Amino acid sequence: MANLNKIKTAVIGASGFTGEKLVELLLKHPRVEISYVSALLEKESSFADIFPRFKGRFELVCKNLDIDEASSKAEVVFLALPHRISLGIAPLLLKKKKIVIDLSADYRLKDTKVYEKFYQVKHTDSANLKKAVYGLPEFFRSKIRKADLIANPGCYPTASILSTAPLLKEQLIKDVIIDAKSGITGAGRKASLQYHFAHLDGNLYTYKPFEHQHLPEINQVLSHIANKKTAVRFTPHVIPAERGILITVYAQLTKALKSQAVTDIYAKYYKKEPFMRFFPKALPQLKDVIETNFCDIGFSLQGKHIVIVGVIDNLIKGASGQAVQNMNIVLGWDERLGLS
Amino acid sequence: MANLNKIKTAVIGASGFTGEKLVELLLKHPRVEISYVSALLEKESSFADIFPRFKGRFELVCKNLDIDEASSKAEVVFLALPHRISLGIAPLLLKKKKIVIDLSADYRLKDTKVYEKFYQVKHTDSANLKKAVYGLPEFFRSKIRKADLIANPGCYPTASILSTAPLLKEQLIKDVIIDAKSGITGAGRKASLQYHFAHLDGNLYTYKPFEHQHLPEINQVLSHIANKKTAVRFTPHVIPAERGILITVYAQLTKALKSQAVTDIYAKYYKKEPFMRFFPKALPQLKDVIETNFCDIGFSLQGKHIVIVGVIDNLIKGASGQAVQNMNIVLGWDERLGLS
Amino acid sequence: MANLNKIKTAVIGASGFTGEKLVELLLKHPRVEISYVSALLEKESSFADIFPRFKGRFELVCKNLDIDEASSKAEVVFLALPHRISLGIAPLLLKKKKIVIDLSADYRLKDTKVYEKFYQVKHTDSANLKKAVYGLPEFFRSKIRKADLIANPGCYPTASILSTAPLLKEQLIKDVIIDAKSGITGAGRKASLQYHFAHLDGNLYTYKPFEHQHLPEINQVLSHIANKKTAVRFTPHVIPAERGILITVYAQLTKALKSQAVTDIYAKYYKKEPFMRFFPKALPQLKDVIETNFCDIGFSLQGKHIVIVGVIDNLIKGASGQAVQNMNIVLGWDERLGLS
Amino acid sequence: MANLNKIKTAVIGASGFTGEKLVELLLKHPRVEISYVSALLEKESSFADIFPRFKGRFELVCKNLDIDEASSKAEVVFLALPHRISLGIAPLLLKKKKIVIDLSADYRLKDTKVYEKFYQVKHTDSANLKKAVYGLPEFFRSKIRKADLIANPGCYPTASILSTAPLLKEQLIKDVIIDAKSGITGAGRKASLQYHFAHLDGNLYTYKPFEHQHLPEINQVLSHIANKKTAVRFTPHVIPAERGILITVYAQLTKALKSQAVTDIYAKYYKKEPFMRFFPKALPQLKDVIETNFCDIGFSLQGKHIVIVGVIDNLIKGASGQAVQNMNIVLGWDERLGLS
Repeated sequence: MANLNKIKTAVIGASGFTGEKLVELLLKHPRVEISYVSALLEKESSFADIFPRFKGRFELVCKNLDIDEASSKAEVVFLALPHRISLGIAPLLLKKKKIVIDLSADYRLKDTKVYEKFYQVKHTDSANLKKAVYGLPEFFRSKIRKADLIANPGCYPTASILSTAPLLKEQLIKDVIIDAKSGITGAGRKASLQYHFAHLDGNLYTYKPFEHQHLPEINQVLSHIANKKTAVRFTPHVIPAERGILITVYAQLTKALKSQAVTDIYAKYYKKEPFMRFFPKALPQLKDVIETNFCDIGFSLQGKHIVIVGVIDNLIKGASGQAVQNMNIVLGWDERLGLS
Repeated sequence: MANLNKIKTAVIGASGFTGEKLVELLLKHPRVEISYVSALLEKESSFADIFPRFKGRFELVCKNLDIDEASSKAEVVFLALPHRISLGIAPLLLKKKKIVIDLSADYRLKDTKVYEKFYQVKHTDSANLKKAVYGLPEFFRSKIRKADLIANPGCYPTASILSTAPLLKEQLIKDVIIDAKSGITGAGRKASLQYHFAHLDGNLYTYKPFEHQHLPEINQVLSHIANKKTAVRFTPHVIPAERGILITVYAQLTKALKSQAVTDIYAKYYKKEPFMRFFPKALPQLKDVIETNFCDIGFSLQGKHIVIVGVIDNLIKGASGQAVQNMNIVLGWDERLGLS
Repeated sequence: MANLNKIKTAVIGASGFTGEKLVELLLKHPRVEISYVSALLEKESSFADIFPRFKGRFELVCKNLDIDEASSKAEVVFLALPHRISLGIAPLLLKKKKIVIDLSADYRLKDTKVYEKFYQVKHTDSANLKKAVYGLPEFFRSKIRKADLIANPGCYPTASILSTAPLLKEQLIKDVIIDAKSGITGAGRKASLQYHFAHLDGNLYTYKPFEHQHLPEINQVLSHIANKKTAVRFTPHVIPAERGILITVYAQLTKALKSQAVTDIYAKYYKKEPFMRFFPKALPQLKDVIETNFCDIGFSLQGKHIVIVGVIDNLIKGASGQAVQNMNIVLGWDERLGLS
Repeated sequence: MANLNKIKTAVIGASGFTGEKLVELLLKHPRVEISYVSALLEKESSFADIFPRFKGRFELVCKNLDIDEASSKAEVVFLALPHRISLGIAPLLLKKKKIVIDLSADYRLKDTKVYEKFYQVKHTDSANLKKAVYGLPEFFRSKIRKADLIANPGCYPTASILSTAPLLKEQLIKDVIIDAKSGITGAGRKASLQYHFAHLDGNLYTYKPFEHQHLPEINQVLSHIANKKTAVRFTPHVIPAERGILITVYAQLTKALKSQAVTDIYAKYYKKEPFMRFFPKALPQLKDVIETNFCDIGFSLQGKHIVIVGVIDNLIKGASGQAVQNMNIVLGWDERLGLS
């Protein structure tokens, strides 16, 4: 009864890191309930049997996906699926007039050729791709409000775009290099020796320099925002931590700038943003945003060079928290609902 | 040329945690060379391709096992194999007059029924089982000297037996409870969500209370040493660390004892032992034995109760270091060679 | 305006681990506001300057304590102070008719001689000590409802008592041994080489066997609940983790029991408890309670022996979450407010 | 007696991370003994009392420094002291004809003004500064052979210079940016909330962009090697790990290069180097050099851009291992002695 006026939501792909976190966030949200969860399972089981930490908090049976059931039970459907899988599911849900928030990369890249190169699969839904709205509220809020298919941004793009877009849009920096460091949950919940505690503890490594699949997403969105073709260099690293992304941005100023001017630019874009925090005199630390939807940004200047540091929780602002923020926008609610 | 007088050794099962560590220890050993390494591989490759950290240090090709080749190339053969596999390999090597040091459980339990219950497989080599010597030098050194098949002790048994045997043998304690804490390498190198960094970091859990497969090994050896049927209670835990075992032993004294008396008992057994360190006034910390072959022991008394704390590196004194120690004994060398 | 009907709270000692966590929990609580925070500071500063993670969430100035100001600004005052300090502050607040929830040990031990032995200081407030109610809701809820001074339990006692009290009260176990493992935040926020990352990472150690200051608290409360003098053996360990306590309890059954009977006993005591979760067929893992106010319990039987495993987040159910739970009870609210 | 022909060494400042590691390395070295250790102590004690892990391995009394005693007992003296302190000690030892290997920054910067700016203290020994040889064997081996004062390089400079010098010397790269990530031992053994396990676990942060004290050292040495004024941009980070440095270098090629050409350049400089390992087709991982004196390097090319990744163990190749390597060179020994 208490739930009569709550909006019903479904989480498809609830057994991955982002799906699990989404369930946790939605459970704390005052205006929604989770009425359907699915995952690829050997046996359908209570969500609390899959994740004992949900015992007593959320014991709905997690099912193998049935589109009709999902559609009949929920108005907002989150797809927390591996890339390539959403392509087959989103169109069916959209046909049934659901609001779809897709956490995969499937509707993020506007150029299907680029998508096909980086994700190694044919893009089969260009119709919906055209309508999909990139779910970065700080730059696309008005479009998100009217969207029924939201392409929720990747974790690296969220950190990278938010940290650099104001200066790029104002044409104040160039030659942008992004050195990104991420906790291991960014790689998804998979059994692999690469993710073994004994391999990662005390370790650190660089991977996919120049060619990470998030790079074209970063460049597409920054080019759009800056209204100018932008090609950053991007190199990710895995750190021995579970959560979080810290990016260190190296760029050249296109003209001399004082610290106050830099601060003013960020204020211009983020002053009213509920989840952007700017540190004019310090560099943000990763741990300060963990378990929050905040993106913290700081910088340091020297002559024509600037170093910008941005941090997010990859599972929250970089995935599930941003998805909830997008839902709040679509439904016309206070953006912060369930997120603080 | 430099190697002319070195003893040739082989490591079978070199891609697991103990095999890898054994290779590392043998490389530093002044009197042996590694002339053969094998593992279950999709493709035979240089050991340094499997483990880049060995680049420039050990680049022998790691092969799929060929008993004839192993036998022709080495005099001492280490089996760093999963339990149940050594049973098929050790007899063949022994027939070829090799010294076999088996790091699995296959020749540790004298009662094949107990073995079969805990390892869920038929024991097929009772002939060699009878001859196998339990490779715990502190208690079985004279037998090890003459052995050609050494059953290298498990990691939990090594810590448990060394910490309690002196007081048990002197009939000074009873009602022994062992609460064991181990780093994750004790579970072997396997891809599993259970070993995922994101699962283990910040976590801690108890497993197999009353029924860990190392328990009968502990009880068998302690009963033998104490010359009295001994049944300890044993409960292992996994801690968020890569390496090491710390055991906390709870027992009742059978008669009143002063601290000095306890110290004297341990001195009686371990004074001349090169790898036993006793702390009469402090409790040992796990990290102090990591990367060493030491077993550190301390204790605390209160009335009729004693708490004993013992620590080892599970991969060294609990596996590969002890295997090297056993080899040194069999070959009549200083027991510390290659281990300090 | 929005806060007109909110209860005003103060956190004294807000710069320690439990104070900081308390601020975080109170900020999420729908029916309170934090109107005063103090800590021992060189310079009064915004709470967000002390802890940047609170930027934009809580920027009240953290002051050096002024009892009059605290009293005038808040109705409920939390003391998150080192032991020995609350003794001087609680009486002043009580005189001003405040509800005081003390997270230190100062009002937990009913016998001042025991207090003085373990905390090495004279107990100067036996008047209030007599009135103080031990804030473990699962056993003292009705008294908490009427209390104005609540002695919030220690982290080890919370885990130890909740895990064993049902079986002790039913006189079903004896010879209780508690092997406790705690994350490092249990030791308080202090600069020390003992807490250095390089010391603790990959480490594990036992400390204060037989004589930890929480032991008399455990025994006092268990004796009271069981209505029988109870003396458990208690040995704590520090694990390489930030948060959480896992205790492993070893005990003897006083009569033969089946698993179902054990489950029934725990159900009798905890079935309606909002923060107690019992696992009849599995052992709880530490991480499943982190960032929650839950206490999870499981067990394993063998003959006359039982192993019980209990886990809590030391900073939440073991400190600040329990303090909020106690506040909810005193104020007649739903006990779960702000805690799920 | 066994030590009659061993060279006597002293470690001044043996209680810090690098001093402790140096003791460990020297103990394993076949041709030296440690005849004197000192540190700033409240009470002179056995080294094994300060560091229990040395029990039974090294129990020499660690003393408060007495220059005469140190000089009379050792021929080679290592200074593992905080910056600014070596300045007062090295001259006294040199006067007594000792070989001094200084692990501090005091004799690294040839320009005393730069030293004074970054270390905030007057440089009082320009006479010896002139004679001091920078102890990076890969580039200054012939000078090291004849030196009596060796300025052992900093950890960041070692990784930075080794990773970039070949391409800089060949004038093949420009616009060099170094993003460095270091384990916490790089900061020295100090009690501070900044180094608290609870602060660093799961954390990551940037510090001192543009102005780390190692930057002028990097630029001085690279300018010297490249024979051209070189000014890299350098930004360090602390990762949640105890040991190791990984640097990610971003640079522009001054002309088009194929991968093989890059490989050839590194081979030209490092082919015969015992501690340099080059990975032509992979990027090195941090953990592969931990507990070794290796520096591993890999790279990735795209158009005119190159990313170079270099890793070292900050306490070994970045400090104490390199110091031992320098000693081996000065004494005319095989450079690898005691280091593999």
